[in-house]
Amino acid sequence: MVQIPKVPSESALPSPLQRSVPTSADVARLAGVSRATVSYVLNNTSAVRISEPTRRRVHEAAKELGYVPHAAARSLRAGHSRMVLMPTPHVAVGGLYSQFFNELQWALSRLDYTVVQYGGVGLRGDEAARAWAELRPVAVIVPSGGLGPEGVAVLKRSGARAVVMLSPEAVDGAHVLILDHGGVGYSAGRHLIERGRRRIGVVVPQEPGLGIYSRPRLEGIRRAVNGTEATVTELPLAYDEQAAGRLAANWRSLDLDAVFAYNDEYAMLVMRALQDEGIGIPDEAAVIGADDLMLGRLLRPRLSTVHLDLPAGRDLAELVDRAVREPGLAPTTHDVLGATVMHRESS
Amino acid sequence: MVQIPKVPSESALPSPLQRSVPTSADVARLAGVSRATVSYVLNNTSAVRISEPTRRRVHEAAKELGYVPHAAARSLRAGHSRMVLMPTPHVAVGGLYSQFFNELQWALSRLDYTVVQYGGVGLRGDEAARAWAELRPVAVIVPSGGLGPEGVAVLKRSGARAVVMLSPEAVDGAHVLILDHGGVGYSAGRHLIERGRRRIGVVVPQEPGLGIYSRPRLEGIRRAVNGTEATVTELPLAYDEQAAGRLAANWRSLDLDAVFAYNDEYAMLVMRALQDEGIGIPDEAAVIGADDLMLGRLLRPRLSTVHLDLPAGRDLAELVDRAVREPGLAPTTHDVLGATVMHRESS
Repeated sequence: MVQIPKVPSESALPSPLQRSVPTSADVARLAGVSRATVSYVLNNTSAVRISEPTRRRVHEAAKELGYVPHAAARSLRAGHSRMVLMPTPHVAVGGLYSQFFNELQWALSRLDYTVVQYGGVGLRGDEAARAWAELRPVAVIVPSGGLGPEGVAVLKRSGARAVVMLSPEAVDGAHVLILDHGGVGYSAGRHLIERGRRRIGVVVPQEPGLGIYSRPRLEGIRRAVNGTEATVTELPLAYDEQAAGRLAANWRSLDLDAVFAYNDEYAMLVMRALQDEGIGIPDEAAVIGADDLMLGRLLRPRLSTVHLDLPAGRDLAELVDRAVREPGLAPTTHDVLGATVMHRESS
Repeated sequence: MVQIPKVPSESALPSPLQRSVPTSADVARLAGVSRATVSYVLNNTSAVRISEPTRRRVHEAAKELGYVPHAAARSLRAGHSRMVLMPTPHVAVGGLYSQFFNELQWALSRLDYTVVQYGGVGLRGDEAARAWAELRPVAVIVPSGGLGPEGVAVLKRSGARAVVMLSPEAVDGAHVLILDHGGVGYSAGRHLIERGRRRIGVVVPQEPGLGIYSRPRLEGIRRAVNGTEATVTELPLAYDEQAAGRLAANWRSLDLDAVFAYNDEYAMLVMRALQDEGIGIPDEAAVIGADDLMLGRLLRPRLSTVHLDLPAGRDLAELVDRAVREPGLAPTTHDVLGATVMHRESS
């Protein structure tokens, strides 16, 4: 890490002409209108008719003074904000999530919501909910599980009209989009069995925070082998070359003929280690990942994978907006994760 | 995309016992203390001595009522917030940035700041600054360039005490950590020349938003070849297999002997396309990436890369805190990006 040089105290110059923050009263004075008129114009209130010249005068005065409305003051007056809070995911997110998030954010901003992501490093579950509640968001979208019914209640008591979770399971009081990661594992398992594999290893990543995805994926594979002669073997694995090298060195004694590698990045790691050990893919070991990342197509043999269909950001934004406008709406659950096997060369 | 089923209107039940949001006055009444005492206790004010039993009573009352302090109200009273705002990057971020960001966030939360990431989809430059200003952050950290002196002024007039940018260039009014991406290109160029290469192709990614990184990297390579007999050829490239395939098919007519591929992900794409075309790496084409991602070590031949040393999150957090406490501090610039070539097998 590069050190940022300490700023020497000598460079602390006397504050240069500290201008005070302009207020809507300053704007009203300069434009020669009431504060209420300033508020109507700058908040684009359609309920009140204001002439075009007045509107222009207010905008020009605001611009001249550099006035920006104060979201917190506005939300205190209105009794609620237009802020939709999303905690930052705990784990590094891939391109798939980034794309989904950008689409969601775009759709919410078109519905006049302000999306903020709140960094919850070190906070988990209901403790995190308390920190989020301090910002008084009108809605909270939790993109992964981990929030319980108590956390949901804290948020609602603090004025959140909607709590929407993307979660592997239902949670009391929240609208939940069930991401059926079991289906991802199930699809991978069915595929391997159909390709004639019978002794399936399943990578269980050891990074903290991934259990909520990896457990249902593992259970999905177990469901797929149920009633067949195929077996499932758990393969705990850290995301590093040494751990993968040990797995590959043990491969032949494990007596497996296939591996579901949790996702494409783990699959790349495992495939490389197996190839370095001289194990033929797919002959000696069929490999399948999940997420359908570009890198899987760049591997040789090309990586088979499970493609995930995340919910459309626009549909999720509409659910949030509906729930905000109708706080009495009974919490709903929807199954929203589609899973499709992309068969390539590695399986 | 999976469609979220529309919620039928029938499920809009009458609002279940709408409890009103508890206030600090409710907590004061239940605990039998003044509102000021509630505020002192819950905000951990050390200036006022309050007995342990009173403290406990306030905490218990707050817990019973489910009261959470209101950050916006507190910041209106205090005249400023403890909110540090960071815009969400426009481009998908890799693991390197995630790690830096987590460390920064952790360090700021230990200094009692609340970090929120603001989604600025569709907003650029000074227009974005206006949207950020509405949240009245006490400090703004801009992790990439794109904000001009006017945007900085808008933020400062709205009460931001510090604007800190990680940027390729200095900006009036802001503390700027200069990320010298030119040094990344320069290091890669020097390395290739030392390895005997003379006709260097430089990948220029066509994804929008990457120009602020790719332009200085290209200039850095030009600096490295300056005064040598080596030449630089720009290779515009989209991040897809077809574009890489066309580049590889043309490779021999381009008459190049090396390529700096912008980063490791582009390097993986280019290397695959060249290998599929039967072009030997590094003999016919030396390849070097940047970022030092795990995937480069998993390629064969192993990918040479430029390792970036980002500033330590803790040092950056301290700079922010210092600037908040001393708003008169003259804006400073620091060069903070270190670049080290990791020579492996591809060059």
